[in-house]
Amino acid sequence: MRECHQAIAQWVDSLGAQVRIDAAGNFRAVYPAAVSNAPRLLIGSHLDTVPNAGVYDGILGVVLAVALLEELRGCRLPFAIEVVGFSEEEGVRFRAPFIGSRALVGRLDQELLDVRDSRGVSVRRAIEEFGLNPREISQAELQSNALGYLEFHIEQGPVLEKLNRPLAAVEAIAGQSRLSLTFFGRANHAGTTPMRLRYDAIAGAAQWISIVERLAQEVSGLVATVGTIEAKPGATNVIAAEARLTLDIRHSSDEIREHAVEDLLRQAQRITAGRGLSVRESTLMSQPAVAMDSFLVQEIEQAIVKAGCPPHRMLSGAGHDAMIMAEKVPSAMIFLRTPGGISHDPAESVAEDDVEKAIACGMHLLDQLACSPDFYKRTHRA
Amino acid sequence: MRECHQAIAQWVDSLGAQVRIDAAGNFRAVYPAAVSNAPRLLIGSHLDTVPNAGVYDGILGVVLAVALLEELRGCRLPFAIEVVGFSEEEGVRFRAPFIGSRALVGRLDQELLDVRDSRGVSVRRAIEEFGLNPREISQAELQSNALGYLEFHIEQGPVLEKLNRPLAAVEAIAGQSRLSLTFFGRANHAGTTPMRLRYDAIAGAAQWISIVERLAQEVSGLVATVGTIEAKPGATNVIAAEARLTLDIRHSSDEIREHAVEDLLRQAQRITAGRGLSVRESTLMSQPAVAMDSFLVQEIEQAIVKAGCPPHRMLSGAGHDAMIMAEKVPSAMIFLRTPGGISHDPAESVAEDDVEKAIACGMHLLDQLACSPDFYKRTHRA
Repeated sequence: MRECHQAIAQWVDSLGAQVRIDAAGNFRAVYPAAVSNAPRLLIGSHLDTVPNAGVYDGILGVVLAVALLEELRGCRLPFAIEVVGFSEEEGVRFRAPFIGSRALVGRLDQELLDVRDSRGVSVRRAIEEFGLNPREISQAELQSNALGYLEFHIEQGPVLEKLNRPLAAVEAIAGQSRLSLTFFGRANHAGTTPMRLRYDAIAGAAQWISIVERLAQEVSGLVATVGTIEAKPGATNVIAAEARLTLDIRHSSDEIREHAVEDLLRQAQRITAGRGLSVRESTLMSQPAVAMDSFLVQEIEQAIVKAGCPPHRMLSGAGHDAMIMAEKVPSAMIFLRTPGGISHDPAESVAEDDVEKAIACGMHLLDQLACSPDFYKRTHRA
Repeated sequence: MRECHQAIAQWVDSLGAQVRIDAAGNFRAVYPAAVSNAPRLLIGSHLDTVPNAGVYDGILGVVLAVALLEELRGCRLPFAIEVVGFSEEEGVRFRAPFIGSRALVGRLDQELLDVRDSRGVSVRRAIEEFGLNPREISQAELQSNALGYLEFHIEQGPVLEKLNRPLAAVEAIAGQSRLSLTFFGRANHAGTTPMRLRYDAIAGAAQWISIVERLAQEVSGLVATVGTIEAKPGATNVIAAEARLTLDIRHSSDEIREHAVEDLLRQAQRITAGRGLSVRESTLMSQPAVAMDSFLVQEIEQAIVKAGCPPHRMLSGAGHDAMIMAEKVPSAMIFLRTPGGISHDPAESVAEDDVEKAIACGMHLLDQLACSPDFYKRTHRA
C-alpha cells in the first residue's frame, strides 16, 4: 500500500496537488481551486482489494480522478478537487469494511479501532505499524467546505454489458438483509420410512428456495440468493433432520425488501407447518438502502449523454464507500460496464473505450458543476 | 462378541443344541431333528450392531430363534433347526456389510478377506485375532440339507405402528440405487447480478429435489431421498457455482426403480438446460431387489393370523442377511412393529406383547412347515 501511495503521489504531485496520508491510511491529494478558501469536491474510490482479485475494482476510480486532474491541464476550477484513495474498503483483513471512509464521516470510533485481525492485531495497532497516529483520526474527517463526493467504479455485474451501455449513474445503493434459516425435521432411515411418514428438512428447504427465487423474479429490482446450504446428519441413506441455509436479499426500497423478508419468513412457516417441520431464523444483517444525491445523479446523467453514451440510471447491488460518504455529503457514483460481470477475479476487465468515455463524462461533469449556482448552494450536511 | 456368544451358547446348550462358532465368527447351534440325516431349517439374524445403537436390531431375531427352541420343550421336528447369529451384518468396522452371511453363501472371498478397517487390520487378521482360522471359511458354507432361512427382525420403520399391526411377512427386500449429482452454475455477486442473468446451482438443485419428492409420492412403494447437499463456494453473498447432492432411491421392482432413476436424470437435464446450468451424475450403487420365498411368505402370513394378528405383507426398505441367504436357500422374514420407527438409537424398542405374538407366530409356522409335504420337496438351490 505504501508503494501504491507513492506511485499515485508522484502522478498528482506533478499536476500541482498536495498529498497527505491521513491517520486512517487514506490517500488524500488536494488540487487547489482558482481562488483560496474555495469549497472542495472529493473524487475517489478505494485502493485495497481482495485476495485473487482483478486490477480495476476500486483503484480504477482513484486513477480516473487523477486522469481528470491531468485533463484539466493546469486549469483551475471554482472549487478544489480532493482525490481520495480509501484504505480498507473490502474488509478482508478485519472483516469490517469501509474503515477508510468511516474515518471521513467520523465513524472510525474506539470500538472499530479495537477490532482485531486473525493474528490478533487491532486496527489501532495496524495504523501504528504503518507509521500513522491513531490519535489523529479526527483530522481525517470531512471539513465543512466539502461540496460532495463522486466515485467512479466498475459495475461488477452484467447489467450494462447486457444493455450495451458503457456508463450509468447510480441512483441508490441497495439495502440488504442477510438471514440464516434452519429447517428442522426428523432423521430417519431412507429405506424404511414411506414418503408420507417423513419429516424431511432438505425437502422443506428445497421447496422454500424455489419460492425465494420465484418471489425475486416477480418483484422488480429484487435480488434474493440462497448461497449456502448444508444438511445434518448428511448421510446418503438418512433423511435429513436439519437443513441450514442463508438468505441474502437486496432492493433499493427498504419497504419492499423488508416486506419480502417478512413474506418469505411467513412462507417458511407455512411450508414447515404443512410438513410437520419447524424453522428457526436469525437476522445477520439489515442495512437500509442509501440514495445517491438526486442533483448529482441528474448532472451525471447529462454528462454521460454529452460523452456520447445513452443515459442510464441503475441501482448498485453492492456496497461502496459512497454509501458511507452519503451520511455527510451529497454523494454519487458512475458505473463502468464490466465485461462478463466478472469481478473479484483475475479475469476482471474494462474496455479502454469505456474508460475514455468515463474521463469524457467526468470532464463534462466538472464543467457543469463549475458553472452551476445550485452546486455551490449545497453545503456540508454534517 | 465372545461374551455374547457364551451367553447364547449357555441358553441353547441347556435345550439340547450343539454349538460352534464358524470361521467367519458366526454363532451356529443345531437343534437336532426327530430323525438322523434330516434336512435343516436355519433361523437367525445378526449379533453385531452400530455405535450408539438400540438393543433389538439383529439380536432380537437370534433371541427369538432361541425362544422357539425353548417353546418346543424338547419336542423334535422332522427337520433340524439351526440357530444362526451372524457376525458383521452392519458393516461398521470394515465398511463392508453382510460379512457373516456371505460366508454361508460362499461369498466371503479373498477380496473381502483383504478389506481393512480404519486401523489397517484386514478381515482375515481380525478373524485370526478372534482365535478363528480364515482358511476354514469354506466350512461355514450352507450344506445341501438346508431347507430355508427365517429371520425375525424389527421393522426399523414406522409402517406397522401406523397401521396398528404387530407383525408382517416381508415379501421382498427393496432394490436400491445411490447416485451423486453435481449441478454446475456460475459463481456471481449476490447483489449485482439480476435474477434473470443468474446461473444459480442451488436454485436448480432445489427445483430438482422437489421433483424427486413429488415423483416418489406419486409412484406407489417408491422411496427417494436427498440426504446430503452442499454448495460451492458457499458464501452468503455469492451465487452458488456448484451444488452437490446424493439420491437414494428404492423399490421392490427393479424396473420401476430404474425407470424412476432414468426419469429423474432426464428431469435434471431438462432443468439444467432450461437454466443454462449443467449436471453431472455418478452411480454409487445399484442393487437389485431380492424377493423372499413365496411359499414361506404365504406360510408366515397364515402363522401371523393364527397368532391373532391381522395379516400384512410388506417390503423391507433396508438390507438384511436374508437378502444374502436368498442367493442359496428359500428365505423369508417376519417384521416386528417398531415404536416410532426408531432404530439405530438407544430409544429403539419393541412391545413385550409383540414379542409374544412373534413367538406364537414362529411356533405356528414350525407346526405348519413340519406337516407340509411341499416344504420338504424344496431343495438347496446351490
